[in-house]
Amino acid sequence: MESNIRLLVSGPRRKRSVAAVSSFIEEHEGYILEADEHLNPPESGRWFMRIEIRGQGFDLGREEDFTSAFAPVAREYGMEWRVSYVDRPKRMAILVSRYEHCLLDLLWRWDAGELHAEIPLVISNHPDLASRAETYGIPFYHLPVTPDAKEEQESQIRELLAEHGIDFIVLARYMQILTPDFVNAYPNRIINIHHSFLPAFAGANPYRQAYERGVKIIGATAHYTTEELDAGPIINQDVEGVSHRHTVEDMQRIGRDIERRVLSQAVLWHLEDRVMVDGTRTVVFR
Amino acid sequence: MESNIRLLVSGPRRKRSVAAVSSFIEEHEGYILEADEHLNPPESGRWFMRIEIRGQGFDLGREEDFTSAFAPVAREYGMEWRVSYVDRPKRMAILVSRYEHCLLDLLWRWDAGELHAEIPLVISNHPDLASRAETYGIPFYHLPVTPDAKEEQESQIRELLAEHGIDFIVLARYMQILTPDFVNAYPNRIINIHHSFLPAFAGANPYRQAYERGVKIIGATAHYTTEELDAGPIINQDVEGVSHRHTVEDMQRIGRDIERRVLSQAVLWHLEDRVMVDGTRTVVFR
Amino acid sequence: MESNIRLLVSGPRRKRSVAAVSSFIEEHEGYILEADEHLNPPESGRWFMRIEIRGQGFDLGREEDFTSAFAPVAREYGMEWRVSYVDRPKRMAILVSRYEHCLLDLLWRWDAGELHAEIPLVISNHPDLASRAETYGIPFYHLPVTPDAKEEQESQIRELLAEHGIDFIVLARYMQILTPDFVNAYPNRIINIHHSFLPAFAGANPYRQAYERGVKIIGATAHYTTEELDAGPIINQDVEGVSHRHTVEDMQRIGRDIERRVLSQAVLWHLEDRVMVDGTRTVVFR
Amino acid sequence: MESNIRLLVSGPRRKRSVAAVSSFIEEHEGYILEADEHLNPPESGRWFMRIEIRGQGFDLGREEDFTSAFAPVAREYGMEWRVSYVDRPKRMAILVSRYEHCLLDLLWRWDAGELHAEIPLVISNHPDLASRAETYGIPFYHLPVTPDAKEEQESQIRELLAEHGIDFIVLARYMQILTPDFVNAYPNRIINIHHSFLPAFAGANPYRQAYERGVKIIGATAHYTTEELDAGPIINQDVEGVSHRHTVEDMQRIGRDIERRVLSQAVLWHLEDRVMVDGTRTVVFR
Repeated sequence: MESNIRLLVSGPRRKRSVAAVSSFIEEHEGYILEADEHLNPPESGRWFMRIEIRGQGFDLGREEDFTSAFAPVAREYGMEWRVSYVDRPKRMAILVSRYEHCLLDLLWRWDAGELHAEIPLVISNHPDLASRAETYGIPFYHLPVTPDAKEEQESQIRELLAEHGIDFIVLARYMQILTPDFVNAYPNRIINIHHSFLPAFAGANPYRQAYERGVKIIGATAHYTTEELDAGPIINQDVEGVSHRHTVEDMQRIGRDIERRVLSQAVLWHLEDRVMVDGTRTVVFR
Repeated sequence: MESNIRLLVSGPRRKRSVAAVSSFIEEHEGYILEADEHLNPPESGRWFMRIEIRGQGFDLGREEDFTSAFAPVAREYGMEWRVSYVDRPKRMAILVSRYEHCLLDLLWRWDAGELHAEIPLVISNHPDLASRAETYGIPFYHLPVTPDAKEEQESQIRELLAEHGIDFIVLARYMQILTPDFVNAYPNRIINIHHSFLPAFAGANPYRQAYERGVKIIGATAHYTTEELDAGPIINQDVEGVSHRHTVEDMQRIGRDIERRVLSQAVLWHLEDRVMVDGTRTVVFR
Repeated sequence: MESNIRLLVSGPRRKRSVAAVSSFIEEHEGYILEADEHLNPPESGRWFMRIEIRGQGFDLGREEDFTSAFAPVAREYGMEWRVSYVDRPKRMAILVSRYEHCLLDLLWRWDAGELHAEIPLVISNHPDLASRAETYGIPFYHLPVTPDAKEEQESQIRELLAEHGIDFIVLARYMQILTPDFVNAYPNRIINIHHSFLPAFAGANPYRQAYERGVKIIGATAHYTTEELDAGPIINQDVEGVSHRHTVEDMQRIGRDIERRVLSQAVLWHLEDRVMVDGTRTVVFR
Repeated sequence: MESNIRLLVSGPRRKRSVAAVSSFIEEHEGYILEADEHLNPPESGRWFMRIEIRGQGFDLGREEDFTSAFAPVAREYGMEWRVSYVDRPKRMAILVSRYEHCLLDLLWRWDAGELHAEIPLVISNHPDLASRAETYGIPFYHLPVTPDAKEEQESQIRELLAEHGIDFIVLARYMQILTPDFVNAYPNRIINIHHSFLPAFAGANPYRQAYERGVKIIGATAHYTTEELDAGPIINQDVEGVSHRHTVEDMQRIGRDIERRVLSQAVLWHLEDRVMVDGTRTVVFR
């Protein structure tokens, strides 16, 4: 699978667009391994397609070559598109504060070969988790936040991201709010984990809120970060049952399990190019 | 099990109160079949206990007899309490509008012997579901609501409830808001089903709200009705996963399944005296 | 959606087969509403595709017309295929014994418009459920089984099925074992519900078996019936947690809920042509 | 909670036994924080009780003191019992082979304070995971198994266990079968994780078996080890849905997540003295 190619297409749905894309691929000797397609209800009519092609045998070269061949097709049908190559793993930065569970889960899965990515660095506003990253041989940058120098810290982060050619960012319980400027520089490329079943319990202390409301199920939500806090397109959610026996602390413990699996799954789908954004919603081809 | 007795006790937790209750029962030759106990975290210290006693052999008579024997114990320990007798099934009224799924599910289960209750009547503000109730031999009252006569309709309902000696009320997708007066007449004795995972998507059209927010899981919530809409103590919640493929209509269909099982389970627990209210939360001994 | 068309294709995966099918459809002015595709791991390489086409605008007529146009494509690529028309609902027979929950759930969903099918008849070896079918205006046939005349009863069933042009059969807790001859007459067209999480607890009394083994989760399985009992391709499974508090009777009650939703969902998928059989396994495009 | 006491009692259910135990505790100034009780269905009538008592104020000393006071009560009612002290954490040994996911999950949780235990050592028949244990400062013993010296290796293990005063053993994907002699030396004190939803797919390669059978849900099972392989009393089970898209490798990846959470939860319950064995079944007070 090393040299497989993934083509993601979206646009208004037009007649013959499925055949246009699949014929394009197969005319270039591409062997389709997986194809997913979604057409939104008639009112919007927006159309999404993901195709995974075996690299071996495909007769188009990378980037320019592919682009010059596919652009006319895309133009004719009004498609937006992107292509990715499995043998060029995405470069992922992890931002974290003090809670280690999400970071550890990502690192462990990465080490176990579950997450096909490069992790050039972990950045934190606290020094606590340095050794966690370093165990896996990943450089750890401690960039503290002070009330006066919040913006400066953010520009240091952005420099590091640029320097390391980062494709996307995972906020693994990073407890700082990013500026709109930062967020807009990485559209649909910052994945955050919120420790509640959004839109319930947005904001601070969701487990305390959940306890006080007396809910019988708690959850976590992985979403792309947008300017509006906790309102970005949802990638993944999961839940666990709780009862009157569970204290806020129990919910935090159970919640850690939900958070780490929800986030890791969202990252996995993002890495496999399974997530497409449709306004405030996502299409996840799984 | 026909003559079993259920004793529910709550109050501030005092020393020796567990022994006080269990000794009381066993001194009266009561054989404890099931005992559940919950002590809230220290800050509140409120204590809840549910005991099911085999009726056979128990040497106390009903009501007055039990009360005069147990009242001194309760007084000494500051306990609130109630007792119920399994051979006197609760009398349950169902209020419904036009959606039949919750009503039917309750009626099936009742007919199948799952719900140990009497159902003297079904009341609706629409005539549509008359035959559903009548199939099971249950009288159906059609009390339409008009803008001018909403209060009048409510007092007709309350008369019927009083006349039939109703113990508790199930709002099986009854699309009218009850007045505070009505609600307060049946404290913790009106069970409502809300078609969302509360507190998310309170109010109208929760499935449309869920669709637009792009959530990946939808749910339903059964709760006791209080003056504040959709804010009463939660008895039961459940969820199902959804994806970008699901339209609002699909969510409504999937939601019907969640609603009926969440409501029926809540009613079952209520009938078995498993639910105790602790402020805005519930203790459910299951 | 009334006149939509569903094309299901399977076969060895060959180069250009995706484009061949989609081009065929789009050349005939077909508008693809939904397309799903699955390629088995390399070792088998078997390929499955399901396409839903908007009927309006499609320029091929039914049956002969479609066949004569598509057969050459199918032949060239070695495809097996079938086509179905949404405005010709499948004709479904329900066989049942004495437990009503699965039957009632199917009838209720059918009446609520969830199951797009015709139900010309319900057949039972017991008379008990006649009124359940008749409430919905569906003819009920009571064909008792006697030790001496089991085969005769089966041929009576098969006559009824033939007479009513039945497309597929649902065994909604039908407690008789069908002969291989019957089973083979309806390949992948008899859906059975088994009241356990197969392959655990095949055979009789699965809830008692589950209780005695002390499992913490019970389940149900809907599968196509094959000659070998409880071994056919699985369409759907679901589970619920249980604890030491649950008796065999509790498990039966909880199990009824699992059974009915697992079976109804399997029937829904079958009706929507979402299930394709791949040897002992199924591909379910959902 | 540091000095809390847990009393676990079981036996034939006799009249007044609940009061006997709770009175005993409260007469000794014990404050009951949590009480759970279970009476098996009449046929067996076996009775289980777990009580957590606040240490502060309780007027009985440890071991001999408690024993001499409680033994007469236990004798009168035919109770078996054990007592544990929260401030004396259990000593847990982990046995592991090459798969690290269960080991790591236990170590993280232990390090995060979720598992209130001491872990004096990790033992493996392979050297691979030494650094994992050592990161957390836990001694790692590599005791390889050779065909000729399997018994010898087992006695080395048993010596280490004895030497370190081990209370119970977790088989965190330890791929060797223990001798009956070993198993019987630690009755209900060896917790194993089996990577299937037992009793389905006992034995080797359960994910391959699951794939070939075409199940739609896979699971894992934590159980106490008994002489008969994969047949011991089940403590915990959980599942995840799978589809035709999942290969055996995908199932192994998903399964790792199920395994680690099922095992860690079982260990947590064991540490909190929530598990009591009832023949081939368990009572889990949660």
